[in-house]
Amino acid sequence: MKDLDVLDSLNCDFVFTPSIEEMYPDFPELQKSTVSVAGPALGFEGADRPGHFDGMATVVAKLFFLTGSCSAYFGEKDFQQLAVVRQMVRDLSMPVTVVGCPTIRETDGLALSSRNVRLSQEGRVAAGVLSTALDAGVEAVAAALAPAEVNEIMASVVADEPLATLHYAELVDAASLTAPLSLVDGVAYRLLLACSIDGVRLIDNAHAEVGGI
Amino acid sequence: MKDLDVLDSLNCDFVFTPSIEEMYPDFPELQKSTVSVAGPALGFEGADRPGHFDGMATVVAKLFFLTGSCSAYFGEKDFQQLAVVRQMVRDLSMPVTVVGCPTIRETDGLALSSRNVRLSQEGRVAAGVLSTALDAGVEAVAAALAPAEVNEIMASVVADEPLATLHYAELVDAASLTAPLSLVDGVAYRLLLACSIDGVRLIDNAHAEVGGI
Repeated sequence: MKDLDVLDSLNCDFVFTPSIEEMYPDFPELQKSTVSVAGPALGFEGADRPGHFDGMATVVAKLFFLTGSCSAYFGEKDFQQLAVVRQMVRDLSMPVTVVGCPTIRETDGLALSSRNVRLSQEGRVAAGVLSTALDAGVEAVAAALAPAEVNEIMASVVADEPLATLHYAELVDAASLTAPLSLVDGVAYRLLLACSIDGVRLIDNAHAEVGGI
Repeated sequence: MKDLDVLDSLNCDFVFTPSIEEMYPDFPELQKSTVSVAGPALGFEGADRPGHFDGMATVVAKLFFLTGSCSAYFGEKDFQQLAVVRQMVRDLSMPVTVVGCPTIRETDGLALSSRNVRLSQEGRVAAGVLSTALDAGVEAVAAALAPAEVNEIMASVVADEPLATLHYAELVDAASLTAPLSLVDGVAYRLLLACSIDGVRLIDNAHAEVGGI
C-alpha cells in the first residue's frame, strides 16, 4: 500500500490499520452513537458538507480510544477540522493533546494538497492567488483594519484572478471560528479562504494578529 | 455530605468529586459537543424526557475520560440507562467494561428507589404491583407466549391495582430494547415497566427468557 510505503520511508515505528470489524463491530449495520460538535463545525466547510464534521469527530473519537492516544497531530491545512477536534477534546474532557502541524507550501505559496494534481497548468499558476490573498489579509489585520475591510481585501485579490471563483474569505477568531466585531490586540485570528480554480475546490488559511506580520 | 458519609461507611477507597470548572471549563457557557445515542435511547424513559439520554451519555463519557475508568458499574434498576451506556461504549470503542448491578428489592419485591419515600402508606402497599406484574411477565415469557400476550398480562396486573396508572409494560430485546416479533430460545429479553402510583412515577424491569423462570 502506498501510504504504508511512505510511512516506512519516514522511519515510522507504529501504524494502526484496524479492520472494518474492529472499527465497526455491527457492520454493515450503522452504529447508533455519534459525537456532534456545534461551534467551530458550523459554516465554512461544514456548510458545504452537511454532517461531515460529526462523522469526522465520531471516527476521530473512536481512533483516540482504540489507540489510547496521548497526543494527536492534525495539519493546519484543514483548520476547521483541527478546530473541531480541539473543541471535542475540550468539551468531552478527552485525555489527548491536540497538536496542529504547519502547512507545507510550494515555492509560490500554494499549500500542498492531493487536489493540486487535478489543476490544469494555467490553474496551477492561478492557484497561487490563495496564498497571495491570505498574505494581503495578514497585512490588513496587522494594520488593524476593520474585519469587513480585511475580508474585502482578500476577496478582491481573488476577484482579480479570472480562473478563480470565491466561496468564502473570512477573518475569524482562531478558536471559536466566529467573526469578531472588531480586532483586539493579542487575540489570535485566522483567515479562512476557499475558492474553486478550474472546478477544483481549494482551501487555505493563515494566522493573523494585530501588529503581527 | 450525605453521599460521602455513606461511601465512607462502605469503606470506599476513592471518590471523584470534580469541580464545575473541571467538568465544564467554559461554564457558564454551554459546551458545544455532545454524544448522541439512538437505538436503545429511543422510547420508554427517552420518550418521556427528550434529550435526557444524550445529556446522560455526554456526562458519562466525560467522567470515563476524566477518571480513566477501566470498569463502570451501573444499576439494572434504570435498565434503559445501562443499555444506552453499553451502546455508547460499543459504538465509540471506549476502553471501558460496563457492569450491570442487580436491583435491590424490599421483601414485597419493590425495587429500592429514592422515590419510594414519596409514596403514601397505601401507595407503598400498591407499589408491590410492579414486581408482581414483572413476575407474571417472566412466567409468560418462560412459557413462550406471544410478545403481545406477555405485554397484556403485565398490563392487566397493573390495571387490577386502582392506585396505579400504567405508562408502559413491554417485552424487549435486552440489548437493543426493540420489540421482538416472536420469542426465540436462548435470547435475553427484558420486561420494562413504568407506572405512576399516587402521582409518583416508578420504573422497574426484569430479565426473561423462553424456558427460564
